[in-house]
Amino acid sequence: MKISELSRRTGVPVASIKYFRREGLLPAGRATAATLAEYGEEHVQRLRLIKALTTLGGLSIAATRDVLATVDQAENTDKTLQAISYALPVPVTAASAGDADRDAAAESAAAADVMGLIAAMDWQVPGTSPHVRGLMTALRELRRLDADYRPERLVAYAELAHSIARLDLERAAAFDDSPALAEQAVIVLALSGPMLELLRRLAQEDQVRRRAAGGHPDAE
Amino acid sequence: MKISELSRRTGVPVASIKYFRREGLLPAGRATAATLAEYGEEHVQRLRLIKALTTLGGLSIAATRDVLATVDQAENTDKTLQAISYALPVPVTAASAGDADRDAAAESAAAADVMGLIAAMDWQVPGTSPHVRGLMTALRELRRLDADYRPERLVAYAELAHSIARLDLERAAAFDDSPALAEQAVIVLALSGPMLELLRRLAQEDQVRRRAAGGHPDAE
Repeated sequence: MKISELSRRTGVPVASIKYFRREGLLPAGRATAATLAEYGEEHVQRLRLIKALTTLGGLSIAATRDVLATVDQAENTDKTLQAISYALPVPVTAASAGDADRDAAAESAAAADVMGLIAAMDWQVPGTSPHVRGLMTALRELRRLDADYRPERLVAYAELAHSIARLDLERAAAFDDSPALAEQAVIVLALSGPMLELLRRLAQEDQVRRRAAGGHPDAE
Repeated sequence: MKISELSRRTGVPVASIKYFRREGLLPAGRATAATLAEYGEEHVQRLRLIKALTTLGGLSIAATRDVLATVDQAENTDKTLQAISYALPVPVTAASAGDADRDAAAESAAAADVMGLIAAMDWQVPGTSPHVRGLMTALRELRRLDADYRPERLVAYAELAHSIARLDLERAAAFDDSPALAEQAVIVLALSGPMLELLRRLAQEDQVRRRAAGGHPDAE
C-alpha cells in the first residue's frame, strides 16, 4: 500500500510516518519508484506498536527505538522478556528525583527498605537492577514526604504487584513465535502499567465517592 | 530562613525556588528587606511536595499548580480526596492517544468493556469521569494491538486495582487536620502509582528471571 493508505489504516499522519522512518523506528517500504515505496501489513502493525508505546506507554522516541531494537533481536521467550524488562524506561530515576538532593539518612533507610522487601518477597533480582535503584529513589522521597510512612506497608503493595506481574507474564508468555511474542510482551509489559493505573484511579474514585456518600469505602 | 538555606534544606536549586514562586506554586516568604525574604517550615514542606509531584509524580507545572490549589482549598476529608482524584492528570487521554485515529468498532467495543467492568465491579463512577474516558482510550488501543486481548481478563486486574486503592485510601484518610490530610492524600494518590509501577516491574523481573532459570515463574 502507499504511504497515504498506511496513514489512513493506522491513523498516523504521513509526516509522522516519515519522521519514524528517519528516526529508524519503522523499516523502509519496498521502493517501487524513485519517490514511491510500497508498505505492507508489517508496517501497519509496527506503526500501531510505535503509537502505543509513545502514547499509551509514554515512551520517548529514543526509548521506543531501544525497545523495538530489542523486539527485532528477539531470540527466545525468556531472553526477549528479560531484554524488554530492562529496555523499558524506569519510572523514577535518581536523576529525575534530583541528585542534588542528598540525604544520607533517608538514602540508606530507603536502601534498607528495598532490600528488606526483596528478601521478604524472595524476589530474585540483582541490586544493580534499574528497578531496584528506581524504587530506592521513590522510597527515599516518600520517606521524606509521608509523615505516616511505614516500610511494613510496602509488603501489602508488593504482594499485589506480584499478582499483577503474574497476570502480565501469563499473557506475555502465551506467545510462541518470537516476533509475535516480542510485540505482545512489549504491549503487556509496557501498557498494562497505564491500564492498571487507570483501574486504580477508577477504584479510588469509587471509594472516595462511597466515603462522601457516607458508605464504607470497602462496602461492596 | 534565607532562600539559600531553604535550597539547602530541600535540595531544590535557588533558581528553581524562584521559578516556583513566579509560577505561583510556592507562597511568598515574609519580606524582611527590599530584596530579602524569610522562609519557614511550611515552605520546606511545600517545596518537597512540589518536587515529589514534578519528579516522582511526573506532573507538569500546570498540573502541579492545580493540585496544590486543590490542597489549599481543602474543606473536609471527602471533598479533598474527591477534588484531588480529579485534579491529578489522567495517564491516557483521547488526545494523547491520537484523535485522528478513529475506529468506530474498537471505540464502541472498548466502551462496552469499560461499562461492563464498572458494572461487574459495582464501581460507583459516572460515565463522565476522566478515568472512565481514559480507560476507554487505553482499551481501544489495546484491543487493536493485543492479538490475544480478552475483556474478561480485565476483571482480574480490576480486583487487584481495587485492593490497591483500598490500601491508598486507608493511608490517605488516616489524617484528620485538613492541610496535613490534603498533602498526604496528594502524596498517596499521586505517588503510590509510580511506586506500584516499580514494584510491578521488580516482580516482573523476578518472574522473568525465574523463567530463564528454568524455574516456575510463580514458584515461591
